[in-house]
Amino acid sequence: MTDGPALASSTERALIDRIRARLDAPPPWLRVGPGDDAAVVDPERNLCDVVTTDVCVEGVHFDRAFVPPDAIGHRALAVNLSDLAAMGAKPRLATLSLVLPPSLDLEVFDAVLDGFLALARVHRTTIVGGNLSRSPGPLVVDVTAIGTVHRRKILRRAGARPGDAVYVSGTLGDARAGLEQCRNGVQEQTGEPLRARALRPDPRVRLGMLLGRTQTASSCMDLSDGLADALSQVAEASGVQLQIDAALLPIRPEARLWFEARGADPLRAALAGGDDYELLFTVPGRRRGRLQNVARLIAGLPLTRIGSVTRGAGVIVQRSDRTDELPAGFSHFGGG
Amino acid sequence: MTDGPALASSTERALIDRIRARLDAPPPWLRVGPGDDAAVVDPERNLCDVVTTDVCVEGVHFDRAFVPPDAIGHRALAVNLSDLAAMGAKPRLATLSLVLPPSLDLEVFDAVLDGFLALARVHRTTIVGGNLSRSPGPLVVDVTAIGTVHRRKILRRAGARPGDAVYVSGTLGDARAGLEQCRNGVQEQTGEPLRARALRPDPRVRLGMLLGRTQTASSCMDLSDGLADALSQVAEASGVQLQIDAALLPIRPEARLWFEARGADPLRAALAGGDDYELLFTVPGRRRGRLQNVARLIAGLPLTRIGSVTRGAGVIVQRSDRTDELPAGFSHFGGG
Repeated sequence: MTDGPALASSTERALIDRIRARLDAPPPWLRVGPGDDAAVVDPERNLCDVVTTDVCVEGVHFDRAFVPPDAIGHRALAVNLSDLAAMGAKPRLATLSLVLPPSLDLEVFDAVLDGFLALARVHRTTIVGGNLSRSPGPLVVDVTAIGTVHRRKILRRAGARPGDAVYVSGTLGDARAGLEQCRNGVQEQTGEPLRARALRPDPRVRLGMLLGRTQTASSCMDLSDGLADALSQVAEASGVQLQIDAALLPIRPEARLWFEARGADPLRAALAGGDDYELLFTVPGRRRGRLQNVARLIAGLPLTRIGSVTRGAGVIVQRSDRTDELPAGFSHFGGG
Repeated sequence: MTDGPALASSTERALIDRIRARLDAPPPWLRVGPGDDAAVVDPERNLCDVVTTDVCVEGVHFDRAFVPPDAIGHRALAVNLSDLAAMGAKPRLATLSLVLPPSLDLEVFDAVLDGFLALARVHRTTIVGGNLSRSPGPLVVDVTAIGTVHRRKILRRAGARPGDAVYVSGTLGDARAGLEQCRNGVQEQTGEPLRARALRPDPRVRLGMLLGRTQTASSCMDLSDGLADALSQVAEASGVQLQIDAALLPIRPEARLWFEARGADPLRAALAGGDDYELLFTVPGRRRGRLQNVARLIAGLPLTRIGSVTRGAGVIVQRSDRTDELPAGFSHFGGG
């Protein structure tokens, strides 16, 4: 991609120094930061820790042919912050593990870091440590993120009750459409939202925190593996049935056009497309007023009612033409 | 290696269930365990959290040709527990991130897990979460471990003062000799310690906790990258010089014989050989009595005085025939 020097020309120590030079001044609660055998952190009083880990692997989660390096770093943190958001947690710290092909350009290394650290700054997430290793194969970025939540404000997948309404944030299928556009070499255009959503997902941290703190949502989950998967998981964890009205699914006109032009069903894409990193959540009837307050506070991010919770099991999707029962859609591990 | 089914024949869900079926009952402080978007953990009152992350990559940190699968899982946790030990921390929880070639045998997957969980059990480390991903290349096992320590009992690399004595636990060069034996196809023999030390390092968790709790050590670091590297790091972090007497380095007769038979210098191997996962620590003169108590409590693990701390910088190794100043030995990132 460039003619700059590769990682192999640097020492591990030099690479670590390159990372440390980019870090902000440590907060007072970080007693021992990067550079010792481990980091030492003062816990936050009266709050629980929320711990998640997620990995991004070249050739599986991103393709360096069309994903810019800063977007790789951004995504590696975003997917973890999205998990914290789904629990109602406030992000606090993260570790960054990089498994790096020695042939990687130093410029690419810097850009991966810059994307990671820019998002960390937005969400006030302190990098407390990490490690570097050579990779004999793909670039791997593994992140553990830790946040905090009050013990009575935890959002779980279990908790949806018959009578609750089912909501989703943002729009669905954008990331899939955007990814297809990237793969097809569609040029990025100003104001074009789909590629941006695919490349730099915006974890719904503020929404998750508000839904938890105001005790508005009875259950919550992020859409990392697509809406259909999230619906099934919440139904199973809560021991309820979710009835979804397909006509209510929020799909951008641009995404709808993209799918239709390629002979694909936009509803199917909205249900099955992963990587949207929106939140699926349920709201009891008596909390509808609180939800309006939350919606006001996060103005700009639509919250759409897409169905309701009933007794039973599984997920029912009602379409104008027919009613589908969603199959338990677990892909084979070897598959895409 | 076997003719059993490969991971590609399983669903991701089935693999996750396979892991969860192996986990012990969760402790009461784990409010939300594996199976939600993230884990929720009650902090331990009045203690700091100690956070570390370390990755094991096939072809870099282990070779599947001679490292049994359970040893891969064991090592992935051991290297992290060794970092906690070096801070004086008590292990508490860990996350496990597996990046898996779909061609991997299910039997191998199970054995990697078994090795990981057996060591977790020994050190009362609860697995709170993790993730699975396909790998288009090597097997990667990435672990984040979290422990706890009292804020006044933290062991750091900085803290060595002129007049302190320099100690190392266990014996040096064993892992390198054992690894060379594995590579050379030397058959494992009962009671033969070198291969065992190379394949299943025993993190010095109890020693680290005792050195910290009794406030015996003024500085501490683990030997993951070899004694020479650790000496340099402690000297630099503490702003002192370390003077080492090569004749005092604890080397097993078996290791000495192995190196000499191959024309290698055992002292050099003891200094440069990594992966021993022993602790290097310094002890002020007035704490020598406490160290004797610690030594009694961990009977069976030798603690050897190898030198002393003086004013100055860097590391001096005194040999009967000459005095060496250790070069700042940072290997190139592309190298071995």
